[in-house]
Amino acid sequence: MILDIINKKRLGEELSYNELDYFFNGYLNGDVPDYQMSSLLMAICINGMSDEETFSLTKIFIDSGDVLDFSDIPGIKVDKHSTGGIGDKTTLVIAPIVAACGVPVIKMSGRGLGYTGGTIDKLESIKGYRVDLSDKEIIKQVHDIGIVVTGQTADLVPMDKIIYALRDVSGTVSSIPLIASSIMSKKIAGGADKILIDIKVGNGALLDNKEDAEKLKELMIKIGEVYGREVRCIISDMNTPLGYAVGNSLEVQEAMDILQNKEKNNNLVNLCYELATNMVSMGLEINISAAREKVEEVINNGEAYNKFLELVKNQSGDINKIKVSNNKKYLKADKSGVLKGINALEVGKLSLELGSGKLSITDKIDYSVGVRLNKLVGDTIKKGDILATVYYNKKNIDADINKIFKIV
Amino acid sequence: MILDIINKKRLGEELSYNELDYFFNGYLNGDVPDYQMSSLLMAICINGMSDEETFSLTKIFIDSGDVLDFSDIPGIKVDKHSTGGIGDKTTLVIAPIVAACGVPVIKMSGRGLGYTGGTIDKLESIKGYRVDLSDKEIIKQVHDIGIVVTGQTADLVPMDKIIYALRDVSGTVSSIPLIASSIMSKKIAGGADKILIDIKVGNGALLDNKEDAEKLKELMIKIGEVYGREVRCIISDMNTPLGYAVGNSLEVQEAMDILQNKEKNNNLVNLCYELATNMVSMGLEINISAAREKVEEVINNGEAYNKFLELVKNQSGDINKIKVSNNKKYLKADKSGVLKGINALEVGKLSLELGSGKLSITDKIDYSVGVRLNKLVGDTIKKGDILATVYYNKKNIDADINKIFKIV
Repeated sequence: MILDIINKKRLGEELSYNELDYFFNGYLNGDVPDYQMSSLLMAICINGMSDEETFSLTKIFIDSGDVLDFSDIPGIKVDKHSTGGIGDKTTLVIAPIVAACGVPVIKMSGRGLGYTGGTIDKLESIKGYRVDLSDKEIIKQVHDIGIVVTGQTADLVPMDKIIYALRDVSGTVSSIPLIASSIMSKKIAGGADKILIDIKVGNGALLDNKEDAEKLKELMIKIGEVYGREVRCIISDMNTPLGYAVGNSLEVQEAMDILQNKEKNNNLVNLCYELATNMVSMGLEINISAAREKVEEVINNGEAYNKFLELVKNQSGDINKIKVSNNKKYLKADKSGVLKGINALEVGKLSLELGSGKLSITDKIDYSVGVRLNKLVGDTIKKGDILATVYYNKKNIDADINKIFKIV
Repeated sequence: MILDIINKKRLGEELSYNELDYFFNGYLNGDVPDYQMSSLLMAICINGMSDEETFSLTKIFIDSGDVLDFSDIPGIKVDKHSTGGIGDKTTLVIAPIVAACGVPVIKMSGRGLGYTGGTIDKLESIKGYRVDLSDKEIIKQVHDIGIVVTGQTADLVPMDKIIYALRDVSGTVSSIPLIASSIMSKKIAGGADKILIDIKVGNGALLDNKEDAEKLKELMIKIGEVYGREVRCIISDMNTPLGYAVGNSLEVQEAMDILQNKEKNNNLVNLCYELATNMVSMGLEINISAAREKVEEVINNGEAYNKFLELVKNQSGDINKIKVSNNKKYLKADKSGVLKGINALEVGKLSLELGSGKLSITDKIDYSVGVRLNKLVGDTIKKGDILATVYYNKKNIDADINKIFKIV
């Protein structure tokens, strides 16, 4: 039976719900070994899955764990997901903006593996910030201040955790249907009424071309239709790091700068405004220009930043205690010219080497380290200019500036 | 590096010798886990391999173990390989014929897994028959009587053993390049000067269509050219069992009947003549019709049968002690008509259930059981006629005659 299913997909045939259910739940239960699952995943990567198969798999994923229900909380709950990129701290910026606009925000994030920590790890660089709120505390806080950003309390989509871990080590990450069902199952099980997806494209992202991003977008919208969830997707560039900070505490500081209206018109700021505008538009059911006005208003009048401070305080964080390492070194330009590119992947690797992220579950994150870009793409550079500041702690890493910066 | 290699093949790109070597030897050494190898094997199954890649893989397989050299033995050593089928006892028939024609036969067979035992297992159903000849005994016997059929003394192509075991359980058996490099590496490492391959096509075989068989044939001939080995291929049917016996001792008896010229013009007899004729043609470098004459001559004058008796005696077997079970039951026709088909796969499964084969290394073979067909395809059947005789021992199996026999 197991081999029959693998053979069908090897030949490019469509698998039924029952076949997918038998195979994937067999894997979850330990009856199907890794080598059979990786074999099937590779066949899926190459031969694809039909929409029907993708809907089936999404359902199997959702049904593997808890499903949250926030229908008792008034208002439309809009969740946001990013497919991940270097320096992506958009959640820290847009959650307070959206909440300040009157849309309830319940953001339950997992701890990611990668070049820097996930949203939850970043927030933990604020001393005392609690990421372990109980269900009761979550509901109370949403009622009180309209925003919660905490860790997952429920066991959402356990199937995704084990399948993702295997995909990661078996060369089977790049499959549009697998990516779509992984993302959508988590958002639907997470109780979102509407879903906004930020699909990253570039060398620092899961997808490296626009065509795949468009396919992923269409597929996620279709899955949303099956579940009666409005889905919007933004396709954004991830060849250049987002903003100027990569590293946990540095990213929190950058998010605070944007909320205080100190940063304008860089790639991060623009993306945050676009995402926040869409979330407000979906949550309040108003058009984009009306939503955009609201977003600008809560930034300009300080309500968004105050909402951030309120969030941190309510979750026991001390906003004055964000630890950034005192050990700095500067990466200086060895020639003059114009900064044509900053390689997102290389900045991510450097930050990871400093200790800002983790590659295995058991690694520990150093919140205080990271990279702060002093110049952004388009800037004119003179030889000797500081291109970036490296905040190190235990390890002082030698960086190859020519791998990171392209000065022409 | 490992993931880069998997990704290249996932995208259908060509792998270099070094990449294949690194990956496959990594697996042999235990550095590459099963789930990465099965992922790569699936990508190979779907995206294929170029001829260059297949030549590389064949070399990597050969280099993984010992390589035999029989150049000291006079004459052209012709090896025969069958891709495997139900009731295939051709080696038992053709090895004595070819030796009787003056071509030296050194047949070193492995013990197969499957519906019945391999050639070596079949010969062990002759009491006392030794399959563990030393290298010295092999050389002496070839000099003395021109024929040896024994087990492998050397560790030939250990890579094939572990890769085959994984392919078998990961749905990655059906790949022409993988099949070709598996077969050809074993034949080349086995020291053959020329190679005859019997490619089976049908429901009881690895391949189920003629096009794949033709591709496999072309590829094996090309690999032979790389190694300076003449390769001929016969493509033969495996929808119907070969001959009338399936089961170890029953198959030895059938082979002896053919060598004694008691059987004529059934699918097994015709195939044995075709294979033996080609081996003699290759070994003596004569044309097909001259070779065919010689083959018929040694059957008609008894030399082939005598060669078989000589072989058994030299390897300590007692030809009068071939144990066939006394417990018989008959499968009788439940209607009249013409026998249009005998399902090879179903006969194989029945025989396996009786105990004639093994599915895991630790299973024990019961040499005395099996199935003897009393009617062959094309025969006119009356209701109540005995279609087959089941020789059972410990287990008396109920067979579904309508699954096996198609009477119209």
